[in-house]
Amino acid sequence: MPDTAKPFEIARARTLPALKAELAALRTGGATIGFVPTMGALHDGHLALVRHAKSLCDKVVVSIFVNPLQFAPTEDLDRYPRDEAGDIARLQSVGCDLVYLPTVDVLYPKNFVSRIELAGPALGLETDFRPQFFSGVATVVSKLFNQVRPDVAVFGEKDFQQLAVVRAMVRDFDMGIEIIGMPTVREADGLALSSRNAYLSPEERAIAPKLHQALEAIRDGHLTIDTAKTELQAAGFGQIDYIALRDADTLGEVTPETTSRRLLAALWLGKTRLIDNIPA
Amino acid sequence: MPDTAKPFEIARARTLPALKAELAALRTGGATIGFVPTMGALHDGHLALVRHAKSLCDKVVVSIFVNPLQFAPTEDLDRYPRDEAGDIARLQSVGCDLVYLPTVDVLYPKNFVSRIELAGPALGLETDFRPQFFSGVATVVSKLFNQVRPDVAVFGEKDFQQLAVVRAMVRDFDMGIEIIGMPTVREADGLALSSRNAYLSPEERAIAPKLHQALEAIRDGHLTIDTAKTELQAAGFGQIDYIALRDADTLGEVTPETTSRRLLAALWLGKTRLIDNIPA
Repeated sequence: MPDTAKPFEIARARTLPALKAELAALRTGGATIGFVPTMGALHDGHLALVRHAKSLCDKVVVSIFVNPLQFAPTEDLDRYPRDEAGDIARLQSVGCDLVYLPTVDVLYPKNFVSRIELAGPALGLETDFRPQFFSGVATVVSKLFNQVRPDVAVFGEKDFQQLAVVRAMVRDFDMGIEIIGMPTVREADGLALSSRNAYLSPEERAIAPKLHQALEAIRDGHLTIDTAKTELQAAGFGQIDYIALRDADTLGEVTPETTSRRLLAALWLGKTRLIDNIPA
Repeated sequence: MPDTAKPFEIARARTLPALKAELAALRTGGATIGFVPTMGALHDGHLALVRHAKSLCDKVVVSIFVNPLQFAPTEDLDRYPRDEAGDIARLQSVGCDLVYLPTVDVLYPKNFVSRIELAGPALGLETDFRPQFFSGVATVVSKLFNQVRPDVAVFGEKDFQQLAVVRAMVRDFDMGIEIIGMPTVREADGLALSSRNAYLSPEERAIAPKLHQALEAIRDGHLTIDTAKTELQAAGFGQIDYIALRDADTLGEVTPETTSRRLLAALWLGKTRLIDNIPA
């Protein structure tokens, strides 16, 4: 029988010892490892990260872990979309070599007492509305990095502030991992792909692309941030957490030293919080 | 000329690239690396750690860095004893292979924004008097671990709470480094070796051993903690920050689950703060 008759079976690990064993096998012959940490509910944006990691490294590891440390008690931890079988099939389709599916007790045993805290790019924007978010992200990403020990890790620019925080953490702690950011993947109408788009009703889904349109209009000088906010709320959006033009490197205020700018937004549409950002 | 005519020259690195180059040379042939992080002013207690690391690993790296992050503005950062030439000679005498002497800007470039924070063993005791201490220790040790990537790191039990904090951090972040604690080395009269003993006047030096004697008397039931405090102050000690009996694993209160206890103390003698601890 030809090899093609035997379907490629993606390796899976649910515990740290299983992960270590699978990684040792993957690393045979000095293979380089690319890593894409995710919370599952994978869409084409995630798959673009995996494909890019595969183009940079010999092997690709993807983690799926809905990290309780980055959710506030009021947030959507319990209803965050989960589709493990679908996720694994999608990862298999893009050549992921190993999927790591730790349970909460694998990452946070009951005596877990540590946290990473950042200032710099973690200040403001998301942190004004989700104070523990980046500490939770940095802590879990640091753990996953130490467990997987990748050469390269790939993150989406959709979570632009998160990408900046991860870059700062890797630099500050001398983690020796190359961090790659990938442009946001969008629907044809401009809506940034997000696992949380699944929460939108058909009516909300029709309104949602206006966020990206508004960001482009601000970038192009057709709207001010304030007029854009008024238009978005008239179109059906709820609370606008922020729309802000920032230095793309520091995520602080734009200064005379700024060489690259980013326009970032977070706002509510019904019970769903959407974020997006573009170069500006 | 015989080899013995050429004195062994300990390798030194002051920058991260120099460290990486020296480490690559040390690791030739798969040699294992033991690591002893210090703040210099090395005494026989430090040298015991280096000797033990050398017995466990093929090569030993020692760092000397007086870490500003773990000193409060009111503390003795500026007058902390420094003796680089003497330290290097002492390290050479015990077979240390590489000494890493980073400057402050190597470990904390101006855009440095990250910190590790711990609860658990970091709560109480030292933290009640030095609130930023363990965050500073954990942050620098984490960086040094990532820079050196040792197999084993050796710490003294003199800083017992620090040892517990480092163990928790390594466990929580899956750092994959074996942490070894070594018993405190003492003078013949019982005084725990400490770089800060150099601050003591001859009169204070004569009083200092009474701390260890008091801890032994409490352990053996000859004194209560309260009567020991009274006797120590009558003997010439100043403020007593704490004398406390704790669970040796959690550093929390002793409970019915406690299997091992530790008696820990910190107090002032003139302008010098002394700490000590013993099993109890």
